[in-house]
Parts: sequence; structure tokens; C-alpha cells
Amino acid sequence: MAKKNHTIRETDDEARALARRLVSSSRHGSLAVLLPQGGHPFASRTAVANDINRTPVILVSALSEHTAGLSNDPRVSLLLGEPGKGDPLAHPRITLQCQAEWIDRKDDRQARLRARFLRRHPKSALYVDFPDFAFFRLNPVSASLNGGFGKAYHLLPEDFLIKSAAVDPLADLETSAVKHMNNDHADAVAVYARIIAGQKTGKWSMSAIDAAGFDLISGDRLARIEFDAVLQDSSRLAPTLAELAKVARESQG
Amino acid sequence: MAKKNHTIRETDDEARALARRLVSSSRHGSLAVLLPQGGHPFASRTAVANDINRTPVILVSALSEHTAGLSNDPRVSLLLGEPGKGDPLAHPRITLQCQAEWIDRKDDRQARLRARFLRRHPKSALYVDFPDFAFFRLNPVSASLNGGFGKAYHLLPEDFLIKSAAVDPLADLETSAVKHMNNDHADAVAVYARIIAGQKTGKWSMSAIDAAGFDLISGDRLARIEFDAVLQDSSRLAPTLAELAKVARESQG
Repeated sequence: MAKKNHTIRETDDEARALARRLVSSSRHGSLAVLLPQGGHPFASRTAVANDINRTPVILVSALSEHTAGLSNDPRVSLLLGEPGKGDPLAHPRITLQCQAEWIDRKDDRQARLRARFLRRHPKSALYVDFPDFAFFRLNPVSASLNGGFGKAYHLLPEDFLIKSAAVDPLADLETSAVKHMNNDHADAVAVYARIIAGQKTGKWSMSAIDAAGFDLISGDRLARIEFDAVLQDSSRLAPTLAELAKVARESQG
Repeated sequence: MAKKNHTIRETDDEARALARRLVSSSRHGSLAVLLPQGGHPFASRTAVANDINRTPVILVSALSEHTAGLSNDPRVSLLLGEPGKGDPLAHPRITLQCQAEWIDRKDDRQARLRARFLRRHPKSALYVDFPDFAFFRLNPVSASLNGGFGKAYHLLPEDFLIKSAAVDPLADLETSAVKHMNNDHADAVAVYARIIAGQKTGKWSMSAIDAAGFDLISGDRLARIEFDAVLQDSSRLAPTLAELAKVARESQG
């Protein structure tokens, strides 16, 4: 992984911003694990959400091959950034090298991960509480970003994970804040989607808030909006959201 | 891999047909390799073509991390079947467990792999002959097919690879046959795309022919058409193609 060669560019703010966007806005990805018998790699598609600091989170069944793999060896690789139309190799993507961490149902973080996952993937309510299903956090160790042909970067977790004193306080108030925005400020949510995220169609709602920004969803689509700067104090959330809506409305005349 | 459990269905013709379609019609996939130092899995996106018997083929740069991995340990996993619109976990996909085989430029198969790859991925002409690029065949050992939630199958290579006495003779005449169809029977090619493959837009051309069917491409789209039965004799190709066009035209009145 640490191999350096002339094809790797120096990490800059543009690369970091692209990495953050890919990690926060991917609803699914390709997960590579090591199979228990012999360590053969195994790739499969998985739904993905994020913990409050942007760490990827997956919900897996103990009956699946990938779960057998990551329960036996926590080393996994997660490819995020699905191609849209056109040349798939021209679309940016990021490979995260991670240590998978099983979340016990009694873990303090279980309720938060469950709520965040369900808001992003409402259909998973059908099986999230089945006894064979469990959450894993995929804690990044390093990353390879590919911004298109010839645009490769090696990144560290601090290049894209969220670090701020506001992370934990925001986790505590996130569910009520999301509910409040969707119930009482649906007009602002629509403005974020249409004007800031440039979404021309769809009914959008907020699904997550963290210190670096928020997620909007509409069916199977997700739009991520990043704040100009990471919030350092949770009391900044309300004024930041209000200001964003105001600026967006004014930009429309 | 051989672990059996009650969630795996018995392989039937429908599963085999789905596997064949996924392996033949994927222009790209997610490749999982083992990194040389320590064997951590590594997932990346790669362009994919097929050899004449449907074995997946990739074109990789020696400077890339995945090439370092598969040159060191030939065990790889290839996830094929990209999600379209809607729920990505409802889209069928297949995980192939493979042994990667490096193709020397002097190998008898090099010219065929190069021609097939270039016809499917015309843009790769820009780098296919760079000295650090090489083809690898990914020879399948086993496969896991996921036809959507709860529809899982374990497959063997013979369930989806093409086996026929016509494979090698067709390889010899493929390039001229493809050229002939595109130059002299463009009307039939258009009929295959519009009526058999159901493609409503685009200008389509033929990019590959093998004993089980043929590929059509239009820009970044690919449509695979399978014959009703695998050809056992290459002399059956011309009448089979003519019959297909005739039946398709008649179906339109």
C-alpha cells in the first residue's frame, strides 16, 4: 500500500473534497473480504451508510459469505463511487482499506447506527432486526482515490473522516434535528436539494446531519451537502442551516 | 466457498442463463486482489471484456496496485452486474472466484484478446500497446450468483463458460465475420439491437461473436444476444444469424 511511484499525485484540498463526497454519498459499494478457508478474496455488493464521523457502516447477515469472511479476518476493502452514464473508468471512485468492527446490539453506538442506516435505507426495516443481522463499522486505515484516468492519490483517514468537538453533541441531537427540519422546514430542505444540490426532480427529505454537512434522500437517490467549514460547536448547526437556505434563496433572485 | 446452507438455491437453467448474461454483458466490474505485503484485500474498478469462451479478460497497468496484487497471487474475485436505477441490492450480480493468468505478448491468444478488448472498449486503443500494460485472463474456479434478495446460487465454471467444438474455429473467423456483418449487413445488426435486444435508441454495431451468441455495442452500452443453442459447428453461424434477422423482422409484421 505504501508503494510510491510517479503516478501518485500529491494530496490536495480538491482530492480531499472528492474523497469526502464519495465516502458520504455512496448508498452502496463493492466489499472485498478474505474467505475463511485459504484467504481467497471475495467481492460482493453491499448497502452502505455512514457513522456520524463519516466511517462507513454496513448491515450484513451472518448467513452471507462476506460476513463469514469479515468475522474471521477484519481486513476488508470497500470500493465506493458508482459509475453513472458514460465511461465507467472516467468516474471518480475511492478504495478504502479498513478494519471491520462488529457492533454488538448492546453497544452504545447500536441505536445511532441503526437510526442512520434506516433513514438512508428505509427498506432495510424489513430485516434490520432479524437475529442474524448485525452492523459493522469499517474503520479506514488508508485509501486510494482515483479521480479519473491518471488522477490517483493515496489518502489517510484524517483526509476524509470528520474530527471536531461537535461530533458527539451533534450525534445526540441528530434524530430530533432531522425530524424538525423535515417537519417544520420542508421548504428549506427543498431549497437545499434544488438549488444547492442541483436536483431538478424528486421529493427530497433530510436523512442525516453531522458536523461536516448533511444528507438528502429521494427514493434511491442521495445528495450530500458539505458545510463551508466543519462545525466546531453544535450550537452553530441551526444558524448554519438557516444561512444556507437564505443564501440559496437569494441566489435565485 | 463450498459451505452449504439453506439460503442457497439449487442451480437451474434460469440461474445459468442469468449468469451467462451477467458474465457476457458487463463492460466493467469490481476486482478484488490480495496486496503483496500482508495479503490485505484490495477492491478496484476495472474494464472487462471476454475471451471467446466467455472467460473474463482485463487490461491492466503494471503501475497499478491491483496488478501488483494479482501478479503476486493469482487468486482474484470479480464482481459483475452493475446496478441501474432503483435499489442496487435488487439488481442481479455475480461474484466469480478466479485464477488470474498473465498473457505474454508472444502468447498465441494475445492478438485475439487485444482485438476483442479493443472492439468492446475502443478508447483503450490509447494505452493498450503501452509497455506497462498487459492482459490477464481471469479463469473462473467457482461463482456466487445473487439474483436479488434471497435468490442465491453457487455455480461452477461449466454453468456459464462456453464449451463446443466450434469455439476455436469461430475464434479464427470472428474478426472477418464481425467486419462483414457491420459492413454488409448493417440492417440486420440494427434489427438485432432494436427488436431482439429491445434497444430503442442508439446506433449499434457488432463487437464480438462466439459459439453462444454475439455482442452489440453503442457508445458505452452493450447488448448481449444469446443463440437458442450453442453452435457446435462454425458453419452454422451464417444461417443462424440470417434466421435470427428473418424471425425478428417477421415478428414486427
